[in-house]
Amino acid sequence: MQHIKVFEACVHEFSRLPGIGRKTATRLALHVLKMKSENVERLSKSISELKEKTRFCSECGAISEGELCGVCSSPSRRKDVICVVEEAKDVFFIEHTGQFGGVYHVLGGKISPLDGVGPGELNFTGLVERVEKNGVKEVIIATNPDADGETTAMYIGRILKKFEGLKVTKLASGIPIGSHIEFADEITVLRALEGRREL
Amino acid sequence: MQHIKVFEACVHEFSRLPGIGRKTATRLALHVLKMKSENVERLSKSISELKEKTRFCSECGAISEGELCGVCSSPSRRKDVICVVEEAKDVFFIEHTGQFGGVYHVLGGKISPLDGVGPGELNFTGLVERVEKNGVKEVIIATNPDADGETTAMYIGRILKKFEGLKVTKLASGIPIGSHIEFADEITVLRALEGRREL
Repeated sequence: MQHIKVFEACVHEFSRLPGIGRKTATRLALHVLKMKSENVERLSKSISELKEKTRFCSECGAISEGELCGVCSSPSRRKDVICVVEEAKDVFFIEHTGQFGGVYHVLGGKISPLDGVGPGELNFTGLVERVEKNGVKEVIIATNPDADGETTAMYIGRILKKFEGLKVTKLASGIPIGSHIEFADEITVLRALEGRREL
Repeated sequence: MQHIKVFEACVHEFSRLPGIGRKTATRLALHVLKMKSENVERLSKSISELKEKTRFCSECGAISEGELCGVCSSPSRRKDVICVVEEAKDVFFIEHTGQFGGVYHVLGGKISPLDGVGPGELNFTGLVERVEKNGVKEVIIATNPDADGETTAMYIGRILKKFEGLKVTKLASGIPIGSHIEFADEITVLRALEGRREL
């Protein structure tokens, strides 16, 4: 019984996904056995198609179906406002707010000396080129507010200093909506204080 | 950006799996994007192959690659000891102990009047036939110890009463290993008391 190779293979593949241990992988494989054939086919196909049919946008580096992503190719998006993110996936989370009308720029990571990632590894030259070329008015830095992300933000601020009239902003840090001040760490509370706004 | 059809499709398919919500599904799809093509192919293939290449054992009803499952076709398993389980997946969990040397019988569910499942829907006739045919010495009932499972166990006990000399046993209920008496409900403690064994 324990030698059903296709079952073990499927459990193994599932368990390589992030956050899925052996037990969950077994549960998923058992569920696949109970699913209708057409649904299994759809799941399997959607996974391979996702990889086959997507690539990175040649302009901003976000995930895209064509040469240009939906944001870069949209005539309704402002090309003179660029939001800089670490990873392609961050674009999704900002897009989900439905409130950002500009375009993105994916760095491909963050400056991290401990992991051996220096500025040379990230797409900063592309950013500078785009700012020059498109007469960009604002660059919004949306790196994550951890140590490496803050370093990266500071670095971006420095390389964009030469553009006069360019506004460089950074996402606000503060107490998350729905949370309580007592659960926030002191640096977050400090940032929330510094970033306080008039009502 | 939010209109990448293949991405949305993949998130949708992932989120239909048990225990996977939209957020986890998105995380999995983003992970697929970052995986190497050959690994994505392997994952996708393992899912469809699991469904294509498995069926139910004609003898016991467990998941199998061939006409007979590995347990039923093994010469080293005792055919005169049958462990009765509700679902095909339960076989895996008992096999994982590596201590059971008999064969299985999958009922395909449990008697559940509320869900409209009567004895007619489950494979009891197959069980009786196998007991008759193979000169079975012991039937171990391994239905789950909930209300319906207990009903099913009692029903099996009744239909097997006519076989003289057949031992019919049931898995022990009690305090799970690693747990504490204080966390067990009173019925479990009662069963543990009733089932106490001499040291």
